[in-house]
Amino acid sequence: MSVVTLLTDFGDFYHGVMKGVILSNAGVNVKIVDITNSIEPQNIIQGAFLLYNSYRYFPRGTVHVAVVDPEVGGKRDAIIVKSKNYFFVGPDNGLLYPSCSEDGIEEIWRIEESKITWEISETFHGRDIFAPAVAYVLNNEIGKIATRKDRIKELELFSYKIEGNRVKCMVVYIDEFGNIVTNLRKEELMKRKPRYIIFRGEKIPFVRTYCEVEVGEPLALIGSFNTLEISIRNGNASKEFGIRYDHIEFELGE
Amino acid sequence: MSVVTLLTDFGDFYHGVMKGVILSNAGVNVKIVDITNSIEPQNIIQGAFLLYNSYRYFPRGTVHVAVVDPEVGGKRDAIIVKSKNYFFVGPDNGLLYPSCSEDGIEEIWRIEESKITWEISETFHGRDIFAPAVAYVLNNEIGKIATRKDRIKELELFSYKIEGNRVKCMVVYIDEFGNIVTNLRKEELMKRKPRYIIFRGEKIPFVRTYCEVEVGEPLALIGSFNTLEISIRNGNASKEFGIRYDHIEFELGE
Amino acid sequence: MSVVTLLTDFGDFYHGVMKGVILSNAGVNVKIVDITNSIEPQNIIQGAFLLYNSYRYFPRGTVHVAVVDPEVGGKRDAIIVKSKNYFFVGPDNGLLYPSCSEDGIEEIWRIEESKITWEISETFHGRDIFAPAVAYVLNNEIGKIATRKDRIKELELFSYKIEGNRVKCMVVYIDEFGNIVTNLRKEELMKRKPRYIIFRGEKIPFVRTYCEVEVGEPLALIGSFNTLEISIRNGNASKEFGIRYDHIEFELGE
Repeated sequence: MSVVTLLTDFGDFYHGVMKGVILSNAGVNVKIVDITNSIEPQNIIQGAFLLYNSYRYFPRGTVHVAVVDPEVGGKRDAIIVKSKNYFFVGPDNGLLYPSCSEDGIEEIWRIEESKITWEISETFHGRDIFAPAVAYVLNNEIGKIATRKDRIKELELFSYKIEGNRVKCMVVYIDEFGNIVTNLRKEELMKRKPRYIIFRGEKIPFVRTYCEVEVGEPLALIGSFNTLEISIRNGNASKEFGIRYDHIEFELGE
Repeated sequence: MSVVTLLTDFGDFYHGVMKGVILSNAGVNVKIVDITNSIEPQNIIQGAFLLYNSYRYFPRGTVHVAVVDPEVGGKRDAIIVKSKNYFFVGPDNGLLYPSCSEDGIEEIWRIEESKITWEISETFHGRDIFAPAVAYVLNNEIGKIATRKDRIKELELFSYKIEGNRVKCMVVYIDEFGNIVTNLRKEELMKRKPRYIIFRGEKIPFVRTYCEVEVGEPLALIGSFNTLEISIRNGNASKEFGIRYDHIEFELGE
Repeated sequence: MSVVTLLTDFGDFYHGVMKGVILSNAGVNVKIVDITNSIEPQNIIQGAFLLYNSYRYFPRGTVHVAVVDPEVGGKRDAIIVKSKNYFFVGPDNGLLYPSCSEDGIEEIWRIEESKITWEISETFHGRDIFAPAVAYVLNNEIGKIATRKDRIKELELFSYKIEGNRVKCMVVYIDEFGNIVTNLRKEELMKRKPRYIIFRGEKIPFVRTYCEVEVGEPLALIGSFNTLEISIRNGNASKEFGIRYDHIEFELGE
């Protein structure tokens, strides 16, 4: 049984249609799993970050279909990437890069609209290009709809500036609990072993687990993405600090 | 392996219970796919529109269970429709009509509560009637819980008024991106080939793809539903224009 | 084919990673069903109530994985419970108790981190402990990661005070329709057969079905959870009355 995942910014509806297309073309035995359909609209960084933190947990051979595609209908390529253990299908806008390059890129293919025999809308390539492509991947017939290409658009997830104790990094995810997930990596923090961070004038303890502070108190820790997160125990740090997707600055206190 | 879809206004929870009932009765091999559970509460038109734009993408023989049911516990019938390629299960309130009539209605059945041997709540027929009905459909035993009927409640998805250049139509869906999806069909637009529309005093270009306007600019196009959509490129037209589900008026500029 | 359910407060993302882990460890034939991932963050009562109202609809042998876990990384145990017909996996904080005790507890196991050979984060035991545990449950190898224990943390879902006609009970769920679901049981109401309730000074009819009042009018009825619900027909009682999760008081009018 083949596994196919979906990661999109489609919200509540369009992914269901993609599932219909996948089952109709690739067969009803395919197992489809939503990684998430709630990527912030057009937020390629967030999509790339969550795909990067999910893809490796799936069985070898899984086809990861990821669609965060602000340039749909424009000139970006639609691609299929074969990496060491997985396949990736999506727009060539950086979304797939951190995942497939970590796993080890083996082949990159550009889907050629001229090879496609069915109708394609200008706005919903998830349904009209990416979902139908899954059957070709699973049937080992990528060449029927695509041609090889050499390069994939790159995207660097872990860019940040550290000057002295001052860190400027990105907010790459805000979860249901309001945890502010940054892209500052564990390795960077382990070098410096901060005891607290100073954020918005507030001294926030750097701890190992939520339970080390009182309920309602802010904290910083290395979260499940292996990056720095700013949280409030049993509270909502994103709301409390008024933080949305953006850059964020703080100081490490050692 | 049989495929069953769900389309409901149940939001976050009740559909999971329906899945349990379906697997318990129809067998664990059934593949259940959510088309969406986020129909606006009681919005039959939106439910009918999204079902109509999804059902045909699923494999032949799929059982589509759709529940947007403001009259639950009242006098509306619970029905099963066999169409040329699919089965539909849901309340007889118009929700199923555009889909099954397009596919070609072959049989209509009314589920008879008197034939049902288990307990039925007054408020959750998704769990107590529609989900259990799936097993009877898949086992070719509809007659055990239902009797034939002649008619189904009709619902016209594509009603709108055009007087000169003035269009009055419906907003049938607002998606995660804030795209305002209307029920004005491609065919109607192709007759007139507008170059722009005038909406709320603003002249909005009618284009083929989002990329033809600058980021942040409004546009109108034929979307993936083959109807007119009003969008803002990489923005949220619904929020910007303050549009919710309702009628909408604009002028076609030819 | 084995069935595994998820009930969490993870919102839009983390559950997908859990599914990857389950499929990778327990095999791709496992069928995973979301009961819900939208439990209010850290609301153990709501989680316990919705699990209690879902678990029994699934096939015998289903593994119910439930994670609402404010003490993650702290001292609460991670447990596996074998009940008469099901397995339950989750934190030992009361979440599982109403369900497994109703079904009949047969064995309780504490997952021992010392027996686990892979890395465990401090914040995401759904991915690192509970999801991997599923394979051990399905392979009948619980003993490889867990040891027997005697007790489980209890939680009483149906505690309320009734003094004369005055009821003080809990709001245990607010659904997508804005229905205010309380924990006051049908049995209690049937003893008293109220004809209305007085809530916030308003006399609200106690009816059998929504259709007994006009559209827009408030009503009280026994909902699909077999408890008292306060609703507005085709409206949103939660918004109208400004009710969130909390205690609620009203009077029964007999």
